[in-house]
Amino acid sequence: MKFTIGRAAFTAQLIDVSRAIPSKATIPILTGIKITATKEGITLIGSDAEISIESFLSVQDDSLGLVIEETGSIVVTARIFNDIVRKLPTTKVTIETNEQFILTATSGEAIFSLNGTDGQSYPRLPEIESDRKINLPTVLFKELISQTIFSASNQESRPVLTGVHLMMNEGHITGVATDSHRLSRRQIPVEFTTDQANFEAITIPKKTLNELERIVQDDQMIEMIVTEQQVIFLIDNLTIYSRLLEGNYPDTDRLLPSSHTTEIVLNADQFLHAIDRASLMSHQGKNNVVQLDITDDNIDLSVQGSSLGSANESISAKSTTGEPIKISFNPDYMKDALRSFSGVDINVGFTSSVRPLLISALEKSETPNNELLQLLTPIRTH
Amino acid sequence: MKFTIGRAAFTAQLIDVSRAIPSKATIPILTGIKITATKEGITLIGSDAEISIESFLSVQDDSLGLVIEETGSIVVTARIFNDIVRKLPTTKVTIETNEQFILTATSGEAIFSLNGTDGQSYPRLPEIESDRKINLPTVLFKELISQTIFSASNQESRPVLTGVHLMMNEGHITGVATDSHRLSRRQIPVEFTTDQANFEAITIPKKTLNELERIVQDDQMIEMIVTEQQVIFLIDNLTIYSRLLEGNYPDTDRLLPSSHTTEIVLNADQFLHAIDRASLMSHQGKNNVVQLDITDDNIDLSVQGSSLGSANESISAKSTTGEPIKISFNPDYMKDALRSFSGVDINVGFTSSVRPLLISALEKSETPNNELLQLLTPIRTH
Repeated sequence: MKFTIGRAAFTAQLIDVSRAIPSKATIPILTGIKITATKEGITLIGSDAEISIESFLSVQDDSLGLVIEETGSIVVTARIFNDIVRKLPTTKVTIETNEQFILTATSGEAIFSLNGTDGQSYPRLPEIESDRKINLPTVLFKELISQTIFSASNQESRPVLTGVHLMMNEGHITGVATDSHRLSRRQIPVEFTTDQANFEAITIPKKTLNELERIVQDDQMIEMIVTEQQVIFLIDNLTIYSRLLEGNYPDTDRLLPSSHTTEIVLNADQFLHAIDRASLMSHQGKNNVVQLDITDDNIDLSVQGSSLGSANESISAKSTTGEPIKISFNPDYMKDALRSFSGVDINVGFTSSVRPLLISALEKSETPNNELLQLLTPIRTH
Repeated sequence: MKFTIGRAAFTAQLIDVSRAIPSKATIPILTGIKITATKEGITLIGSDAEISIESFLSVQDDSLGLVIEETGSIVVTARIFNDIVRKLPTTKVTIETNEQFILTATSGEAIFSLNGTDGQSYPRLPEIESDRKINLPTVLFKELISQTIFSASNQESRPVLTGVHLMMNEGHITGVATDSHRLSRRQIPVEFTTDQANFEAITIPKKTLNELERIVQDDQMIEMIVTEQQVIFLIDNLTIYSRLLEGNYPDTDRLLPSSHTTEIVLNADQFLHAIDRASLMSHQGKNNVVQLDITDDNIDLSVQGSSLGSANESISAKSTTGEPIKISFNPDYMKDALRSFSGVDINVGFTSSVRPLLISALEKSETPNNELLQLLTPIRTH
């Protein structure tokens, strides 16, 4: 294998692909990056067995300055290879391998030799057979991820809850995540045919969606293909492969309260900042709990009983309707939920001090099937 | 105690003083910040017993918006108090204490109560008796710190080597640091009378100089007072107290080679970048060693024998004089030394492959007593 490529473009692709590569792995070859040169271009692959990221650099893309002299493939340790390419002295780098699988990177007067492994020994990625590609609206899908992913569980005891559950319905996709203390639910409008969506629902691991959200730019297209055990995202020259989470996802719709005995309207950021301040004190105590006391438009927020001290604040709501209520909750969960509303006015609905509270935006979207809900289970303090 | 103050200015002073405060301490009260209100203003004190930082906020400084209603003093846990003040909702904060040493911070509708301790129980700082203040040239003194401090030892077996040694001579101060593998030496011109400098030499702990360098702005004045066991730095409204390191500092002048058998001239940054690249490979092996091979103006830099691979680079020197030489050294020490020359052309002098090499700037300063030297002991590889 021998090729020359522009160093900046090569470095950028190495960084994207390396997002999948673990620094330590039980399968040693997975700490490597696979580099394959064909007449058409260079393919880079990184994987941790759950997520694989593939990047294709085409000889036809003039911005890459890619010239292939000899085809072949090799695997080299990703971390050190990336560091070397990043720090080389000139704008071009020539990569060459020999029969002993030693890779040589040359740039200006600098020559690095790295011991590698035969590219044939790297695990193969599944072939993409499906033509059932769904075009996802990039900005809305990234919102769906960021507004739900924090509610996904970290507990491996129920693996299916560690992902975000996507449900396909005519004209929209609904994303749900829950750790059984809180639930996030976002609907976004998506056009697809029943032919394209050959499935009702899938659950995608949190890590996959985190990487997708970081890698994809707002102006890029995302195509999604779902196979029996995998989901594949196509973004320009990048392909992200991920396993799906198995198991029955709970029926979450029945958890959403249909009516409220108390409702308040206030600004999400104003509420967020007050909770954030109060949490400074609740973090000091054994129980990380903040209490709300709603009787009129002045809502009392308080943290009591910490050995270090206490916090009190009165927040002006825009409106308060229904019964007076006292309710306690985990302020960190509330902060996550409030942040997802990006500072708009919100409606918070309560049923009782032991039933979940429901947060939604005061103004509904003009687009149908475009809605965000955050559900939070209170903490019983008596 | 009761006072009201502008929150932004108060936060900035809390941050400076808190630099001295440990998050955990064997003497619990040292995790606190002492706040004292007198008619003249507010004094904040933080300390880890080795370094103490004091800030005075005067009622006469209109920018602080400081109004004192009641004098007194208290100690509260620094970390949480700082977080609270930083996150309060309005531009002003009122601090009040009661007889149970509970501090209340009020800002807008937010009220925080923090359990504190009597300010009388906080250790007292030494009184500054000396009028022997030396005015230090701020920018040059900060250079002296940053260009020597990395050579100070981390080994507590010889405590005196963990600091920077300052020697007072007519018209200049010389700072030296060494961990016995390398030595940094910077001279700066300073005007003082023998009356002001009531000492020949002192050794200041590394941590003190690190904090001083971070806190002091280039346009601020530094005054230094040396007492029997302490050094005190005065910077505007801040006072930094530090213990001095005890013990005899080694006579380092005799370590500096007086002549060289080989000399090269090259650009510090060009050399630095090549060493930095080569160190990517040397960090992979057991011995962190880079080798230089000097025969003509093309200097060969190489790393061999790592199980992962090798690195080679040829660097063009501006001139090479004297005997051919092969010499090996720790690239991380070399990088520290080269960085201190900020990209100017340097002269590197060699005596033999087992004797220290000496780095100095090619162009000497026009100001007398203004010189930087870096000494590096090679590694024997045979």
